[in-house]
Amino acid sequence: MIAKKEDSEPTAEQPLPNSRKVYVAGKQHPDLRVPFREISLAPTKTMNGEIEVNEPVRVYDTSGPWGDADQSVDVTKGLPALRAKWIRDRGDVEEIEGRAVTPIDDGYLSEKHAASSNGKNGGPPRTSAFSVQFSALKRKPLRARAGRAVTQLYYARQGIITPEMEFIAIRESGKTESGSLKSEILNLKSAIARNDLAHQHDGTAFGANIQKQITPEFVRDEVARGRAIIPANINHPEIEPMIIGRNFLVKINANIGNSAVASSIEEEVEKMRWATKWGADTVMDLSTGKNIHATREWIIRNSPVPIGTVPIYQALEKVGGRAEELTWEIYRDTLIEQAEQGVDYFTVHAGVLLRYIPMTARRATGIVSRGGSIMAKWCLSHHQESFLYTRWDEICEIMAAYDVSFSIGDGLRPGSIADANDEAQFAELFTQGELTQRAWKQHVQVMNEGPGHVPMHMIKENMEKQLEWCGEAPFYTLGPLTTDIAPGYDHITSAIGAAMIGWYGCAMLCYVTPKEHLGLPNKKDVKDGVIAYKIAAHAADLAKGHPGAQYRDNAISKARFEFRWEDQFNLSLDPETAREFHDETLPQEGAKTAHFCSMCGPHFCSMRITEDVRKYAAEQKLSEDEALQAGMEQKAREFTEAGSEIYSKA
Amino acid sequence: MIAKKEDSEPTAEQPLPNSRKVYVAGKQHPDLRVPFREISLAPTKTMNGEIEVNEPVRVYDTSGPWGDADQSVDVTKGLPALRAKWIRDRGDVEEIEGRAVTPIDDGYLSEKHAASSNGKNGGPPRTSAFSVQFSALKRKPLRARAGRAVTQLYYARQGIITPEMEFIAIRESGKTESGSLKSEILNLKSAIARNDLAHQHDGTAFGANIQKQITPEFVRDEVARGRAIIPANINHPEIEPMIIGRNFLVKINANIGNSAVASSIEEEVEKMRWATKWGADTVMDLSTGKNIHATREWIIRNSPVPIGTVPIYQALEKVGGRAEELTWEIYRDTLIEQAEQGVDYFTVHAGVLLRYIPMTARRATGIVSRGGSIMAKWCLSHHQESFLYTRWDEICEIMAAYDVSFSIGDGLRPGSIADANDEAQFAELFTQGELTQRAWKQHVQVMNEGPGHVPMHMIKENMEKQLEWCGEAPFYTLGPLTTDIAPGYDHITSAIGAAMIGWYGCAMLCYVTPKEHLGLPNKKDVKDGVIAYKIAAHAADLAKGHPGAQYRDNAISKARFEFRWEDQFNLSLDPETAREFHDETLPQEGAKTAHFCSMCGPHFCSMRITEDVRKYAAEQKLSEDEALQAGMEQKAREFTEAGSEIYSKA
Repeated sequence: MIAKKEDSEPTAEQPLPNSRKVYVAGKQHPDLRVPFREISLAPTKTMNGEIEVNEPVRVYDTSGPWGDADQSVDVTKGLPALRAKWIRDRGDVEEIEGRAVTPIDDGYLSEKHAASSNGKNGGPPRTSAFSVQFSALKRKPLRARAGRAVTQLYYARQGIITPEMEFIAIRESGKTESGSLKSEILNLKSAIARNDLAHQHDGTAFGANIQKQITPEFVRDEVARGRAIIPANINHPEIEPMIIGRNFLVKINANIGNSAVASSIEEEVEKMRWATKWGADTVMDLSTGKNIHATREWIIRNSPVPIGTVPIYQALEKVGGRAEELTWEIYRDTLIEQAEQGVDYFTVHAGVLLRYIPMTARRATGIVSRGGSIMAKWCLSHHQESFLYTRWDEICEIMAAYDVSFSIGDGLRPGSIADANDEAQFAELFTQGELTQRAWKQHVQVMNEGPGHVPMHMIKENMEKQLEWCGEAPFYTLGPLTTDIAPGYDHITSAIGAAMIGWYGCAMLCYVTPKEHLGLPNKKDVKDGVIAYKIAAHAADLAKGHPGAQYRDNAISKARFEFRWEDQFNLSLDPETAREFHDETLPQEGAKTAHFCSMCGPHFCSMRITEDVRKYAAEQKLSEDEALQAGMEQKAREFTEAGSEIYSKA
Repeated sequence: MIAKKEDSEPTAEQPLPNSRKVYVAGKQHPDLRVPFREISLAPTKTMNGEIEVNEPVRVYDTSGPWGDADQSVDVTKGLPALRAKWIRDRGDVEEIEGRAVTPIDDGYLSEKHAASSNGKNGGPPRTSAFSVQFSALKRKPLRARAGRAVTQLYYARQGIITPEMEFIAIRESGKTESGSLKSEILNLKSAIARNDLAHQHDGTAFGANIQKQITPEFVRDEVARGRAIIPANINHPEIEPMIIGRNFLVKINANIGNSAVASSIEEEVEKMRWATKWGADTVMDLSTGKNIHATREWIIRNSPVPIGTVPIYQALEKVGGRAEELTWEIYRDTLIEQAEQGVDYFTVHAGVLLRYIPMTARRATGIVSRGGSIMAKWCLSHHQESFLYTRWDEICEIMAAYDVSFSIGDGLRPGSIADANDEAQFAELFTQGELTQRAWKQHVQVMNEGPGHVPMHMIKENMEKQLEWCGEAPFYTLGPLTTDIAPGYDHITSAIGAAMIGWYGCAMLCYVTPKEHLGLPNKKDVKDGVIAYKIAAHAADLAKGHPGAQYRDNAISKARFEFRWEDQFNLSLDPETAREFHDETLPQEGAKTAHFCSMCGPHFCSMRITEDVRKYAAEQKLSEDEALQAGMEQKAREFTEAGSEIYSKA
């Protein structure tokens, strides 16, 4: 459907193996259909020849209708407007004409300029299905009726459980309700171990309030307290609702977006689908250069996950890249433009105050955030306080009218280990706290962005200060990268920091790709970044004791132990790579059903021995104590005979 | 020199860019030549056109003579015997005839069997330089004179500072003594920050005793206390001494080795060189199947780093793979065979006691360690206590006679998140502690192996129990993997756990490659595993506050900030990949000297803005306070004019 750059390249179209999309209906809102991916498994063949059924495993699924083989979606038409009725039923929005889209929104001086530019170099390649402008959307933008806040925070504070909240409760509760007995026991064992540890070690739970079951009421309560947000612009009815907060599954964001030096619209739409196929919970469109508006429209209309942007990037394009020429009016107009399109959260670097800027002068790496730099340049040029700060309340009004959430930017985040946790960084974080409180007054949902480059021993302080200063609003960090010395591998340097801060309570982790510091990510980089961050987020969920998290680990470990190779591949975050790696060593089809693994070869296998241990324990019906007490010579002989026989077959 | 499997594949031969080997002489032992890799840097061009010299950066180098362009080494002859004189000068060893090498050592029934097998399939491909047997070694094996312990631990306890200890002190102190003023200041700033944090947060330093300067006396003292080991078999004089202990740089180990299903000797030698090129501090040869002895000889004679093995693997081959047929005599003979060859440390799974085995029966994934499984099988077959445990003191005698260090294995380590920190695992760890004390009585150096699969919140308990129960002997862990759900990416799942446990005090991290659980690592996997673990180890060194660690981060961050692209590549852990990724986005040669980066394009760059901020602060000679007080309108105008001019050039 989307023209491919390289025909051999894998696309988002390809389904994941042994998987089907299943939906769970709501109770309070019966029209809800909460999606999961269900992975079917082979039965276990026990040593005594019995067959034991393995229940299918349900996993959280961010791919939306794109991941449902039964739904046919056309990228030129966009996704179905899942939430449209819910939004209208609340009776607090109105259709408006909306702001007229102008050539300058895409960086052109005139229609003629746009037409001539897109016809030539700079525009995306033409295919039958694809043009620069996405023209399928017939509906008009919505806005809150005068004086109304249409945010999930507002509803939560009124005690209203919205369909979005129930959707999320079901989605977060996740795992299949049956599940094999074995899995249940393993979960139970782990829960006990966790509780023991929580008492043994201070700080294990880091004050998180992990629920045994996520109820709609719990979702509402967390949103009402500002501890979680549901990014869901009323003009983005296509999304499947999701939540960002530290008492829920840790989420990840994938950045996409073209820039002046590379990329095209089609590639960006495919990257969005690709990122959500592999598990991105939100996507930020960081496009710069030409066709920003058009690119964003294509992305939003086709995205099942919330979309975030940094509006100052587009505003900067509108003034020809000259930061000092930015004005509040241009910025405001850009906010409305994007809010009407359906952007779900805005990064706003309003904490970069004039008085903080000189604090960066003696840093090793100064200001590395693009948004922070733009505002620093503006502040120094005018020697005035940032208009993002002085106009904050007006910005909040706009956000409340469309339910755009804040992601308060960290423009002074450290760009190197040397600058971690310094005065400039924490000064801005403190101001983020003030801005959070002011946004909450207007019922606007808020999360706070965090670093960056931070060595391991300094990570926790970031989380603690953010919780304290920002009233427990969700934290959303970039990594952090735990060392500067591995460009080309910063998905790994940062996955370390991301997993740790996720455990400490960070609600969403902004991915870092292997191209960080070096170039723009291609599809392979996007996937590598997403997988590294799914690992970090899941490791954090396990450490936090999220009740549904270990279910998947247990299922894959059981498959591994029982030599169900295909199930091991299919249950993994990246089935294709797992299968490919296995087949490099043992390409024969038979090797995938064999009772040995490629590390030890057919002659000896440690997992096989364990089966002998179990068989021994089971046959003899001996507990550990009995095993030590009973007369052993006879048993030993029996085992040698039985074991040797089994062994010689291998 | 070594025939390549694929001619297009990169080899260990290729030097790292802008690098040369430099040597630092000893003071107490002037014949010492401690190697470093020195990376030369371009000068900084400041905004006002001045040139600032950047001192070359010295990094720890594990590549040995292979990494020195001025040394010509022939793989068929092996490396020079660097330590031969030091060993003989101690006057406590004697040359012996040694054990005769027999066909069974390589898994053959007779010479004829070996000859016919190696001529056909199973043997390595023939090249002019290469044959199965490494025949260049003319010297006889050494052994301690009767009644002597020739271990570094013994010498340390006598108050002797060996050449190995001084070598290590210089090697660990590392960084160039000049270094630019800027770097010194950054180090100082960080040191202050670290100290502040150490007081703010309990547990930041985790009881580690990080020295400002590593002296030979400190090395001796740590070895004497058993808190560090210097794996250095008297029959492996080719190594460049290194130390494993939590008050030194965190080390990493790379596993190589063929198995019944793949690989050949030549590939394994190349993998060893390849692993040490990228930074492996020790290499374990885990070969199984045929030609184990021959493979090991090739590896040891060419290895500048300590080599570890698991002798039970070879012993098992000698009894045709039937664990129950293992005997103490065969095992003992194998220990002596390998000690005479020069293996520097042995993994011995002596903590797998008969009474612990049934504890694994109800596990999710039973026994996953190969060595643990072998011994479990033996114990159950005979219903006797493991001979590794009952013969421990005899094993210690052998170790002491060659200075082979123990790596006491963790045969019952967890193979899944569900089994982490369970009774079986900790029972064995407790016994590891007992074995450690007994080895120390005989002056044998000891480290302890640890898990495995452990979720983040359970990692610290492992380190704490190991320190307590094993008398602070160095801990050496496999990962740990922090989730089970990402086969194909377990270098990442485990780098997270490895970095954390390294910070908590783990002395050496055994790498995990992307092929873990799936297949045997090829060269790409070896490199991916080594780089991921260099990242984890370095992140841990930073978090522990190792005085030399941040020097390299600062140098690369400065290069990044100043758009010295080539320096950024060359200072990174993997210069080739960094350069390649950059060139994918901006292939033009000019882009590597341009004052913009590929993320933002030529028109706008956040780092450039920071230069403006600095220039502004410098020109105006304003402190933060002055900046707020001085009359600002004039300054703002000046800045706009100056800044705009700079800007329009970009």
